This record gives sequence, C-alpha cells and structure tokens, in this order.
Amino acid sequence: MSITLQTALPSVAARLAIRRGDHRGPTAGLAAGYVQGNLAILPASHAADFLKFCVLNPQSCPVLAVSEPGQTALPTLGQDIDIRTDVPGYRVFRDGELVAEPEQIDAFWRDDLVTFVIGCSFSFEEALLQNAVPIRHIEQGRNVPMYRTSIPTHPAGPFHGPLVVSMRPMRPAQAIRAIQVTSRFPAVHGAPVHLGDPALIGIADLTRPDYGDPVEIREHEIPVFWACGVTPQSVIATTKPPFCITHAPGKMLITDLLNAHLAAL
Amino acid sequence: MSITLQTALPSVAARLAIRRGDHRGPTAGLAAGYVQGNLAILPASHAADFLKFCVLNPQSCPVLAVSEPGQTALPTLGQDIDIRTDVPGYRVFRDGELVAEPEQIDAFWRDDLVTFVIGCSFSFEEALLQNAVPIRHIEQGRNVPMYRTSIPTHPAGPFHGPLVVSMRPMRPAQAIRAIQVTSRFPAVHGAPVHLGDPALIGIADLTRPDYGDPVEIREHEIPVFWACGVTPQSVIATTKPPFCITHAPGKMLITDLLNAHLAAL
Repeated sequence: MSITLQTALPSVAARLAIRRGDHRGPTAGLAAGYVQGNLAILPASHAADFLKFCVLNPQSCPVLAVSEPGQTALPTLGQDIDIRTDVPGYRVFRDGELVAEPEQIDAFWRDDLVTFVIGCSFSFEEALLQNAVPIRHIEQGRNVPMYRTSIPTHPAGPFHGPLVVSMRPMRPAQAIRAIQVTSRFPAVHGAPVHLGDPALIGIADLTRPDYGDPVEIREHEIPVFWACGVTPQSVIATTKPPFCITHAPGKMLITDLLNAHLAAL
Repeated sequence: MSITLQTALPSVAARLAIRRGDHRGPTAGLAAGYVQGNLAILPASHAADFLKFCVLNPQSCPVLAVSEPGQTALPTLGQDIDIRTDVPGYRVFRDGELVAEPEQIDAFWRDDLVTFVIGCSFSFEEALLQNAVPIRHIEQGRNVPMYRTSIPTHPAGPFHGPLVVSMRPMRPAQAIRAIQVTSRFPAVHGAPVHLGDPALIGIADLTRPDYGDPVEIREHEIPVFWACGVTPQSVIATTKPPFCITHAPGKMLITDLLNAHLAAL
C-alpha cells in the first residue's frame, strides 16, 4: 500500500523511470513542483572540508542533504532513493580529470563516498514564473547562462575558487519583484547577489557565459545575478580531489520535497 | 499617573514641545523610532474621493489614519494629539493657491475638515540604516530628492496626477538588501517601484529634483526609487480643491506608533 502511494508521487515516478533507463535527458520540467538538486560525491577524506566549504558559502552551496560514508539512500530527500541509479547521467573525475560519463555509478561506488545534494535555482524559477516574472532562458529553450565572477568564495581546506552566478535579464520592476520572491528561498540561493553592470563582479561579456547558453537581453532590461549551484562543481574542478562524482549538466536528482515547502515566507 | 507615562514617551514629549512653540523646525531626528506622517486635511465634500484615491494608490498614499469630520484628535496614532497644534508648520491652500503658512491652524479649523495621515519614508530609512544601507541625503544633511514621474496614479473623482518618487543612490548589493528591508514596510511605501535608468520612468535629470535636494551619486551606484508620500500633495496641488491644509515640508506629525511595529515581517 505504501509503495502504491509512493509511486503515485510524480517525483517517485520520475526517479523510477530514470532508474529503469526510460529517461536519460535533462530533468528540467520533470515532476513539476518538486525540488531538484545538484550532486557532488566525494571521498570521506574530503567530505568534512567540503561540508565546511558549503556551510561557509551557503548562498552558492545550500546543502539539502549529506549522507553517511557509503550510504546510497537519502531518506530526508525521498523514499527509496538510490543515488547510484536515480540520476539520468553522471560525471566521474579522478584528480580533477573527467574519466567517465556513466548512466549509473554502481561500478564506481565505494564505501567511503559521501553524497552532497545542493539546492538548485529550478526551485525559485517556479516561484518567479508564478509571480509573472519572465525567465528568458526558459522562453528561449536554453540553459541558464552562468559566469565565473571576481567574487571569491570563503575557502575551506583545499576548496577555494570564484563564485559562479546565473543570470536572468528582466525589467527593473520585475527585478524588484524577483528579489522579493527569491528572498523567500534561502535554501535554493535566495536573493540575487548583484544586478546591473556585470563588470562590477568581473564579468567581461554577457554573451560569453562560462557555463550554459547566452540569452537575449532586451531593451530596458537589466541583468540580475544569483549565486549558482555550479559554484561547488567549479570549485571541485579547481581543487582536483583524487576522486569525485557529480551529476551531468542539467541531469539533477529529483527529490520528494516540494519547492513550495522551501519557501521561508 | 497616566499623564506622567505619556509625557515619558519621546513622541509625546516632542508633540508637546511643538504645541508649546518650543520646536518649529523640521521633525527629522525627533523622537527616534517613532512613526512620522504626512498630513492632508480636506473638506468632507472631497474626503471620500481622496480616501478612494489613497486606497487605489496604496504604495504612494498609505493611510495611517483618517478622522471623522471636524475631529481634531487622532486616537489611533497617539494619545492627546491635537492636529491643529501638534505639527511645527502648516500650509493652507484655497483653490490650489497657498494662502497662509501658519504655525497652528486653530484659526482655519472647520467642522467639516477631515484629516488624513499618510505614511512617510522616515520609517523605513531607520530600518535601512540598521541594515547598513547608507542613505546619502542623511549623510549629506539634505532633504531626500523627489521627482514627478511618467507613471500615472489611479485617479479617483477629481484627484489625479503623476506618481512622485523619492530616490536613494546605492551600490547594487545594497539595493538588493534595501528591497528586502523595505518590503517589510508596506504601510510606509514598501519596496521600490524602480531602479536604474531614470528615463524609463520619465525623469530627465537626477540633478534637478522636483522636490527636495539633489544628492551625490557615486561611481558604481544606481539610483533606487520609492513611491513617495509627496504624491498626494502633488495631486492635491494639481486638483486644486476649494480648501486644503497640509504640513509644511519636512514638518511632519509625530505619532506614538513605533516604526518597528509597522514591519510586516
């Protein structure tokens, strides 16, 4: 009976489809209303420093869950999650180098691996759309443009590097509303970190994002910048830990949490 | 005993000093922490339309209190208020023309006059300063610069005219914080209505405000614009009612309400 109830959840159905191999694409649009998270899996030897890094940089690295070493379930995020199979695609790094892009990570699993799930802007984008704030990259069917900035993160152990931001162009009144709406979501990046002149945070050219795709900025629009969950991946790439697994870009972990439940207000 | 308690309130002490004629200057800085309000006194014949105007334009005209015709007390705003004597200076208008600038309005009082007290940005400025958001016109010892915009108000009866905004320059990250802080104060103008390019709201030259004083805008700062309680005065000037009394600029009604109590969150 409880299995029937679980399967009825769109998030559980989506994870099962992914586990079966029926869905291998990006997760945007799947299980609408449910929280999706960024994935970072590190050896226990690096987990304490990485957790400290996340705690020191909560706006870019909001931790939704952290596992015990070797634990493949994430009961606080969803029933019956198996982190080795429930994401559509993974990236495996050794000493900072990409060595595999598997669809499952059973073959790479180790008893010392600690899983971090980090909040993602998908959650607040749903709230922005509900508040009539347009999101250009969704309108244009692209990935959000992301940029490395001149804003440093707070280092912890070997982990250090610049803050990565996502950018959404909008009119000033929409930016004001977007600040109000996203301030309600401290667990998924919260309010913007900057708006207006990109040069002030070290971005030379908005048409050349470091990650994702460029989007159109229309007349009378200003760019608005949020701390981005790609920051920890960027920092891991800089730090080159001996072993690491992340999700493949756009292929997130779908949880049973509701975006609406992340709203502080 | 209750009189002793009342006199002990800084707001009551300030009003009594004003009533006695011991204070005739602007009220900025008096009774720190207490709400100050804009004053508009109109004949009952115009009061219903003006109230409707305020209700239709709550961001610029947040009504803190409205009296019965002829009533000189405002018990919801403070004990023992006499609106004829408790403001340091008044302006009396007939058919839209300034006919007197008295220190008290006993001689002008009529049984059909309805008093409106409208929220003022002093309340949220205290919160901004407490949140380390600098306020340039306070730093420079000037009045806040205010501008008529191309944004129309919602008309009601004879009352119509453009939105007036106040402007505070700040850095983008401070603007984001200022939006969060002032969003908590819907009773005193709330969040900004605009930021960035002034031309988008019909302001041609920030160095030439329509009311108040110009302030310095430093490198990397953007102008942030809030709906302003001068809007109703501007609208009354446009509408030219047969009779009207307002406070003299900067000489507000000090109430017994605490700014902190206006915070929605």
